[in-house]
Amino acid sequence: MPARGDHDARRRDVSEAVWRVLADRGFGGLTLRAVAAAMGASTGLLTHYFPNKKALVSYALDVADERTASRSLRGTETPGLAALRAALLDVLPLTPEAAVMNRVWVGSWDGSLADPELREREMRRYRGWRARLRVHVAAAVERGELPASSDVDDVTAAAAAFAHGLVVHALFDAEEYPPERQTRMLDAWLDALAP
Amino acid sequence: MPARGDHDARRRDVSEAVWRVLADRGFGGLTLRAVAAAMGASTGLLTHYFPNKKALVSYALDVADERTASRSLRGTETPGLAALRAALLDVLPLTPEAAVMNRVWVGSWDGSLADPELREREMRRYRGWRARLRVHVAAAVERGELPASSDVDDVTAAAAAFAHGLVVHALFDAEEYPPERQTRMLDAWLDALAP
Repeated sequence: MPARGDHDARRRDVSEAVWRVLADRGFGGLTLRAVAAAMGASTGLLTHYFPNKKALVSYALDVADERTASRSLRGTETPGLAALRAALLDVLPLTPEAAVMNRVWVGSWDGSLADPELREREMRRYRGWRARLRVHVAAAVERGELPASSDVDDVTAAAAAFAHGLVVHALFDAEEYPPERQTRMLDAWLDALAP
Repeated sequence: MPARGDHDARRRDVSEAVWRVLADRGFGGLTLRAVAAAMGASTGLLTHYFPNKKALVSYALDVADERTASRSLRGTETPGLAALRAALLDVLPLTPEAAVMNRVWVGSWDGSLADPELREREMRRYRGWRARLRVHVAAAVERGELPASSDVDDVTAAAAAFAHGLVVHALFDAEEYPPERQTRMLDAWLDALAP
């Protein structure tokens, strides 16, 4: 059995290789062979970690979760709409790194929709994200930045939908959706919500 | 060489089988073997049609295009916002058939993002869709339903993004996004645009 330090280093190598494969080829290109090639190891070694395709996909989703959780986020000193804006900007592909992150998540949807367990995992992830956004929407209503009559859940769901749809269109068409335009579109939408 | 009628009938069989595989397992599950099984044919027969994986994926996108083009659409007697609303409702997964259609398109994104040619094809498809939506937005401004100061391209792009993001969230979470709620969210979105 390898020492703990070896184990952690190996795990980092595997994660890094999985991420490179996802960024280049998406989940459709995620195979033991591709990961092995990306880390200069044998496919046999990886079979030890991943007995089947689903184990590899689940691990890849773990890697994506870790990367998403550890990325640096905008500060949000002001609650309410400013915090909502910052949280949505954190999702948009405004930098090459954020574009890779989004490309991986969008690529995960095909496999997640095909597998009940992965689908449920993704559903819970998005419910969690909306719950975090909802705090900002509720604060915006509280502060009078949004009409008191706002349906907090629907505004939150609309914000999440708008951001994710913009992610998809920007990934396919970087030319038509440069970062300035994405930001301008988000600001126009937030302005339209105000009373 | 088979008679023309045989050829067309065979093509319909293949298309139907491809669609069933996409609906059940997505592009990740689209293999010659799966299509052959779905049509009760031999894999050998299909190798004749599809020399490689990309040929099969391109054909699947053609099938999705045909199904999308031939689906029945809402009537749009009134131009402007009413027509925009109808066009966006046509995209949302409000029926089981529309959910399958969307599931297939969302599932296509992983492979399209990984291949320059397919990515360009998808980019052009979405530019075409936005050009059709833009006509309605421009008419809405013309009719005074939207402020004269509206940025027609940005409003169009925002509407497209909102609809596609809502598609994704509704596919993962049918419980939280029943058809009534999707429609209510779209109407709130359109209301917020009005002067």
